[in-house]
Amino acid sequence: MKQSVGAKTILYPTPVLIVGTYDDAGQPNGMTAAWGGICCSKPPCIYVSLRKATYSYGNILARKAFTVSVPSQEHVVEADYFGMASGRDGDKFAAAGLTPVRSELVDAPYVAECPLVLECKLLHTLEIGLHTEFVGEVLDVKADESVLDEKGAPDIARIQPLIFAPGNRAYFKVGEFVAQAFSVGRQIQED
Amino acid sequence: MKQSVGAKTILYPTPVLIVGTYDDAGQPNGMTAAWGGICCSKPPCIYVSLRKATYSYGNILARKAFTVSVPSQEHVVEADYFGMASGRDGDKFAAAGLTPVRSELVDAPYVAECPLVLECKLLHTLEIGLHTEFVGEVLDVKADESVLDEKGAPDIARIQPLIFAPGNRAYFKVGEFVAQAFSVGRQIQED
Repeated sequence: MKQSVGAKTILYPTPVLIVGTYDDAGQPNGMTAAWGGICCSKPPCIYVSLRKATYSYGNILARKAFTVSVPSQEHVVEADYFGMASGRDGDKFAAAGLTPVRSELVDAPYVAECPLVLECKLLHTLEIGLHTEFVGEVLDVKADESVLDEKGAPDIARIQPLIFAPGNRAYFKVGEFVAQAFSVGRQIQED
Repeated sequence: MKQSVGAKTILYPTPVLIVGTYDDAGQPNGMTAAWGGICCSKPPCIYVSLRKATYSYGNILARKAFTVSVPSQEHVVEADYFGMASGRDGDKFAAAGLTPVRSELVDAPYVAECPLVLECKLLHTLEIGLHTEFVGEVLDVKADESVLDEKGAPDIARIQPLIFAPGNRAYFKVGEFVAQAFSVGRQIQED
């Protein structure tokens, strides 16, 4: 028997993404968001949903671009800080000791210390309510060589991304391998 | 030094969500999607992005409703199967031995065996490219009593949701607790 817990934003897992933008003065800003993910395969697109009150909101609309940097668990303090402080009040990169890198493809900076980054051109803006969804076309994915597997693909086990659990209001690690996708389910198809 | 891996849909973590719908004949269908997540806090909204070719696509448009059921790692075989087979070819619930439950709030079924379910009313449809994004307002979240923590919140550690890693094409478990959110970053703010 299931119990109602109300109309809430509880879904597992959600990601921990640092959204990179430039402000009017060209100052790099980073903001952590968990309302984000992949939303189209062709063209490859991801989205982040931000409140209008955020500094990043205006930055994305002005530059039509953003990046998403995926921090590893070793940067949980910085990632949490980037989700609480506002770029209006100062340089978050400097305060956290992180390094902004200018993207060569889009008008936005990414975080050098994050092992996986996506450079996005703004494609759609969807006003939903408290949050506005920004859909960006992924022009490139860049990864540290140390997190690539033998086939050259970014490996989740080496990246060690954070998971955000809204119901727990906490960060978790990625755990063990369970099964290969598009494979383990075949035993039902073949029954 | 970062290496380009191309314009791809690689982001970590992505969720494993079973989208529940009814077809024209009232037959329940479930389809696993990893392109999904939370996209607004007020009203509480989640989205799933589906290809037009899927059976679920027409079902959502016709009924203006869908559910999202979050399987635990013990149902990885069923979840993978629900991502490969099509409801056009038969009753996936019956083949997988899972139980559809009619939502009392929206015109869609959820999966009884999944510990966490969200019942959604279709709010927006955004055509992006190969995928169409369906934004649904969450009318209720329901959870098995066994996965609620002492405060009554669905606990990620008890739910044991799956993580899908697009670059690995594999499923992973949720791992250990790292830190409390909106808390651990304060040490930088206070510097």
